[in-house]
Amino acid sequence: MPETVVGLPPAGSAPAGGSRVLIRSDLVILSGAAVFVALSGITHYSHANAVVAFVCSAVAVALLASLVGRSVEQLGDRFGAGATGVLQSALGNLPELFIAFFALRAGLLTVVQSALIGSMLANLLLVMGAAFLVGGLKHGTQKFAKSRARDTCVLLALATAALVLPSMAQYTHSPAEPHVRSLSDAVAVVLLLLFVLSLPAALRRHDGDPAAGAATAAGAATAAGARQAAAEEAGPGHEAPRWPLWLAIGLLALTSVAAALVSDWFVTALEPTIHTLHVSEAFAGLVIVAIAGNAIENVVGIQLAWRNQADYALSVVVNSPLQIALVLAPALVLLSLFTATTFTLVFAPMLVAAVVVTVLIVSLIVFDGESNWLEGATLIGLYAIIAAAFWWG
Amino acid sequence: MPETVVGLPPAGSAPAGGSRVLIRSDLVILSGAAVFVALSGITHYSHANAVVAFVCSAVAVALLASLVGRSVEQLGDRFGAGATGVLQSALGNLPELFIAFFALRAGLLTVVQSALIGSMLANLLLVMGAAFLVGGLKHGTQKFAKSRARDTCVLLALATAALVLPSMAQYTHSPAEPHVRSLSDAVAVVLLLLFVLSLPAALRRHDGDPAAGAATAAGAATAAGARQAAAEEAGPGHEAPRWPLWLAIGLLALTSVAAALVSDWFVTALEPTIHTLHVSEAFAGLVIVAIAGNAIENVVGIQLAWRNQADYALSVVVNSPLQIALVLAPALVLLSLFTATTFTLVFAPMLVAAVVVTVLIVSLIVFDGESNWLEGATLIGLYAIIAAAFWWG
Amino acid sequence: MPETVVGLPPAGSAPAGGSRVLIRSDLVILSGAAVFVALSGITHYSHANAVVAFVCSAVAVALLASLVGRSVEQLGDRFGAGATGVLQSALGNLPELFIAFFALRAGLLTVVQSALIGSMLANLLLVMGAAFLVGGLKHGTQKFAKSRARDTCVLLALATAALVLPSMAQYTHSPAEPHVRSLSDAVAVVLLLLFVLSLPAALRRHDGDPAAGAATAAGAATAAGARQAAAEEAGPGHEAPRWPLWLAIGLLALTSVAAALVSDWFVTALEPTIHTLHVSEAFAGLVIVAIAGNAIENVVGIQLAWRNQADYALSVVVNSPLQIALVLAPALVLLSLFTATTFTLVFAPMLVAAVVVTVLIVSLIVFDGESNWLEGATLIGLYAIIAAAFWWG
Repeated sequence: MPETVVGLPPAGSAPAGGSRVLIRSDLVILSGAAVFVALSGITHYSHANAVVAFVCSAVAVALLASLVGRSVEQLGDRFGAGATGVLQSALGNLPELFIAFFALRAGLLTVVQSALIGSMLANLLLVMGAAFLVGGLKHGTQKFAKSRARDTCVLLALATAALVLPSMAQYTHSPAEPHVRSLSDAVAVVLLLLFVLSLPAALRRHDGDPAAGAATAAGAATAAGARQAAAEEAGPGHEAPRWPLWLAIGLLALTSVAAALVSDWFVTALEPTIHTLHVSEAFAGLVIVAIAGNAIENVVGIQLAWRNQADYALSVVVNSPLQIALVLAPALVLLSLFTATTFTLVFAPMLVAAVVVTVLIVSLIVFDGESNWLEGATLIGLYAIIAAAFWWG
Repeated sequence: MPETVVGLPPAGSAPAGGSRVLIRSDLVILSGAAVFVALSGITHYSHANAVVAFVCSAVAVALLASLVGRSVEQLGDRFGAGATGVLQSALGNLPELFIAFFALRAGLLTVVQSALIGSMLANLLLVMGAAFLVGGLKHGTQKFAKSRARDTCVLLALATAALVLPSMAQYTHSPAEPHVRSLSDAVAVVLLLLFVLSLPAALRRHDGDPAAGAATAAGAATAAGARQAAAEEAGPGHEAPRWPLWLAIGLLALTSVAAALVSDWFVTALEPTIHTLHVSEAFAGLVIVAIAGNAIENVVGIQLAWRNQADYALSVVVNSPLQIALVLAPALVLLSLFTATTFTLVFAPMLVAAVVVTVLIVSLIVFDGESNWLEGATLIGLYAIIAAAFWWG
Repeated sequence: MPETVVGLPPAGSAPAGGSRVLIRSDLVILSGAAVFVALSGITHYSHANAVVAFVCSAVAVALLASLVGRSVEQLGDRFGAGATGVLQSALGNLPELFIAFFALRAGLLTVVQSALIGSMLANLLLVMGAAFLVGGLKHGTQKFAKSRARDTCVLLALATAALVLPSMAQYTHSPAEPHVRSLSDAVAVVLLLLFVLSLPAALRRHDGDPAAGAATAAGAATAAGARQAAAEEAGPGHEAPRWPLWLAIGLLALTSVAAALVSDWFVTALEPTIHTLHVSEAFAGLVIVAIAGNAIENVVGIQLAWRNQADYALSVVVNSPLQIALVLAPALVLLSLFTATTFTLVFAPMLVAAVVVTVLIVSLIVFDGESNWLEGATLIGLYAIIAAAFWWG
C-alpha cells in the first residue's frame, strides 16, 4: 500500500466514526498545530527571544491554515462541488486575512502590501515552478487541457489589471491623496461585486457542467476538488472519508479562533524579528509572511504535478492568486476602514512591476498548454531574482 | 415576424425603389438625425445653455456617425467586400476626424488625445464586455473561430506598440521637443504607409479568400459585413435591400457635411460644458467624446453576440480600435500641421498605461478563443475603473 | 541546377577531400573575410580615415562571424544534433563577445548595452519581419507548427523577464549602487545556471525526441539544423558535405583569433566614427554594432521563410535572442569583472521598454501560429520606429 502523502487521503481508509475519519495526514497536522500553537503561546507570553517566537507562530499559522482549508472542504463537500468552491474562496484565506488585519492594526502597511503580492508571486512562480520541475523530471513534457486553466488565467489577468490600476494612476498622474483612496475603494467594490456576482453560478455548478468555466472566480479548482479527483481515480471502493458535520464545523470554529490568536502573536513577533534579522519590511512581507500563510496547501499543486495531473495542478496554482486579487485584497481595503492604517491598493512600483511581469509570463505558459522541467526551473529562478531585488532593495 | 433591431435589416423587406430600400431602422435614424441636427443648430445659434447644446450636438453626432457608416457600406457594397472594407476604414471615422480637427483648432489637445485612446478603450472594454455579457447570459460560454479575430488582434497589438513608442521615448529619455515631434511624424507616416500597403490586397479580397487574413488592416471585419452575414443567414429570399447609387452617394455627402457642421457646434459647446460639470478635459475626452463618436455603431457588436455570432462580434469590436490606431491617429498627426495646436503621439502616461493594459487583456481573451458573461462583466468593471481614475485624476 | 544561396549547400556537391568540401558559398565568404581582415588591418595600422577603417572592420567581423558559425556547425555535426546545439549556443556568439569585451575595455558601456538589446531587436523585429514579408509575398499566409517555436518563445520571455528585473529594481526603488551590482550578478548566475542545467538534456537530444522541447535553451533550432533539413529535403543523394575534423577545428581556431583581432580594430574605429557621423552611442550600439555582429547568419531565417519552411525560420530567429539573454548577457556581466568598466544589467529605460514591447509582440505572433506579409511589414516598421527613437534620443 502506498504511503499517504500530505493532503491526499490514503487509499483504502474506511469512513467511520468521528475519530477514525481523521486520516493519518489530518492527525499529523492536527497534533503539529496543537504543539506549535502551545509553543507560540508560551514564547509569546514569556517574552522569549523574538525570532524563536516568530518561527513557532509561523509554523503554527501554516498548520492552522491547512486545517482551516480541510474543515472548509469537508463542510462544503456536503453541499456539492459548487458550495465547496464558494466556501473555499470565502473562508480559505481566513488565516491570511487575520495576519493582514493585525499587521494593519500594528501599522505594518508595507508588510501587508508586500505579503499580498508575495502570496501571488509565491504561487505563480515558486509553486508553479516546483510543480513543473517535479512533474517534468518525472513525466517529461506535461500537457494540460487548455480551457480550464485558461479561463482562470484570463480572470487572473483581468483582476490583476484592476488591482494595479490605482498604483498606475498614482505614479502616472499623481492625483491628490483622497482621490487615490476613492479610486482604491472603487476598485475594491468592483472586484467584490464581480466575486459576489459569480457566486450563484458557482453554487449551481456541478463537475462536467459546461458553464463551469464561468464559475472559476468562486474557486472552481480547489485543493478539495483535487483530492476528490485523486480519490475517485483510486476507484469506487476508495472514497475519501467524510467527516461528520459536527466535526467539520467544530474544527473550523476551533482552528479559526486559534488562527486569529496565533496571527496576533505572529504579528507581535514579526517586527522585532525584522529588526534582529536586518531584513526590510518589504522582503519580510513578500517572502516570509507570504510563504507562512500558504505553505502547506501549496504542496497540493506540486503533488498533483508529480502524479501527472498537470491540468488540475495548474488550476489549483492559478486559482489561489485569483482569490487573493478578487477577494482578499478588496476585503482588506474595506476592513482597513476599521484599523488605524488605511490599506489602499497603491503598491510600491516594484511590487506592481513584479506582479505584472509574473502574470504575463504565467499567461504565456498557460496558453502554451504544456510545461517542462526547464520552464519550472526558470520560474523558480525568477522568484529568486525578485526576492533578491527586495532583499537588497 | 420579429421586430427589426437597430442596424440589422428586417427579414423579408423587399428591395425596391429609392425610398422603400431605406429600411425602418435607417428611417428612424435619419429622422432622428434631422431633428437633432436642427436642435443643435438652434441651441448653437441662440446661445442656449451650454450643456443642453452639448447634449443635442452629441446625439446628432452619434446619429450622423451611424448614417455615414451606413452610406459607406451601401456604396462599398457595389464594389465587393474588399471595397467596403477599404471605404469603411478610410471614411468610417470621418465624424471622429471632424470632431478632433475642430477640437485641435480650439486648442483642446488633451481632449483629442484622450478621446482617441478613449475610443479604443470604449470598444475593447465596454463594447466587448457588453457583448460577452449579453452573449454569455443568453448562450453560455461562447466560442469563436480563432484565426480571424487573432489576425486583427495581432495587428492591433503591433499598431498600438507603434502608437505608444513616442510616449515611451518621451518619458524614458526625454529628448528635445523637436525630436519628439519628428518621431511622432515618423510613426504617423509608418502607420499610414502600412495602411496604404494593405489596400491593394484588401480591394482584391473576397470572402472566403485564404489571404483575407492579411487584409484586416483595411477593415475586413466591418459592421457592413456583419449585417450581410446576418441577412445571408436568413436565407436566399431575405437579402438586405440595396440603396440606389445616387442615394448612397447623396446621403454620404449630406451626412458628411452635416457631421462637419455639427462637430463644430459640438466642440464649441464642449468647453463650457466641461467647466459647468466640473469634469477634467481628460475625462471629457476619454469618456464623453469617445462614446458620442461611436455610440450607435457599437450596438452592432453587442447585437451579434446576442445572436450567438461571437466570432463576427469580436472581429467588429477589435477592428474599430485598429482603424483608430492605423488611420485616425496618424491622419490627425498630419492634419494638425494645418491647425494651431500640434497633435503629437505623446500621450499622458496614464493613457499609455490604460491602452497597453487593455490591449494585453484583450489579446489574452482573443487568444483564449472563448468568452463568458463573467469575463464580460470584468471588462466592463475595468472600463469603469479606468474612467474613475480619470474622473478623480 | 539551382544556384547556391548563401548559407545553404548546393544540391549535388559531393563530399570529398579537404578543399573540395568547402562549398562555393564557404569559399566566397572565406576569401571575402581574408580580404577584409587584411583591409581592416591596413586601415587600422596606417591610421586611415576612421569611417573607412570602421566599415572595413565591420564587414570583416560580419564575415568572420559567419565562418565561426560554420566551423562550429561542422564540428558539432560529428557528435549529433545535440552537440551542435550546445556548441552553437556556447561558441556561436564568440565574435559578439569579443566586440563587447573590447568595447567594455574602452569604456563604451552604453554601446555594449545597446548592442545587446539591439541584437535581440534586430532578430525579433527586422529579421522576423523580413522573413514574414518575403515568405508571405511568395507563399501567402504561412502557418507554423506551434510547439517548437512556442517553447523557445516561452523561454525567451522568461529570460527577458530575468534580464530586465535589475533595471526595474533600479528605476522603481533606486537601491544603493552596490546592491544593484549584486542583483545583476545574481541574475547572471541564475541565467548561466539555467543554461548549464539545460546542457545534459540538449546533448542527449536527437531530432524527433519528445523531450526536445526542454532542450531549446541550448540552441535546439540552429542555422546548422536548418541547413541540414534543407539538404535532407533535397534527397538522400544530396547530403551536405562534411568537413574533415582538422579543417573544422583549424578554421574555428583561425577565425576565432582573427575575430578577436578584428574586434579590437572595430572598437578602436568605432569611437571616432560615432563622432564623425554625429550619432549617439546608444544608436551606434543598437543599430550599427548589433547588425554587424549578426548580419550574415540572419540571412538564414529569411531564406527558410522564402523556402516556405516557416516553422524552422521562426525557431532560428527566436533562438538567437534567447542565446543572447541566456548566455551572452550573463557572460558579459561575469567577464566585466576583468575590465575597467563594470557591465551591469541595468539598461536605459527606453531599452527596457523596447525589448519588453518586442518580446510581447513576438509572443503574440508566435502563439498565433501563422504569419502574413503585412505583419512582417509592421514588424519592420516597428524596428524603424525604435531605431528612430534612439536616433533622435
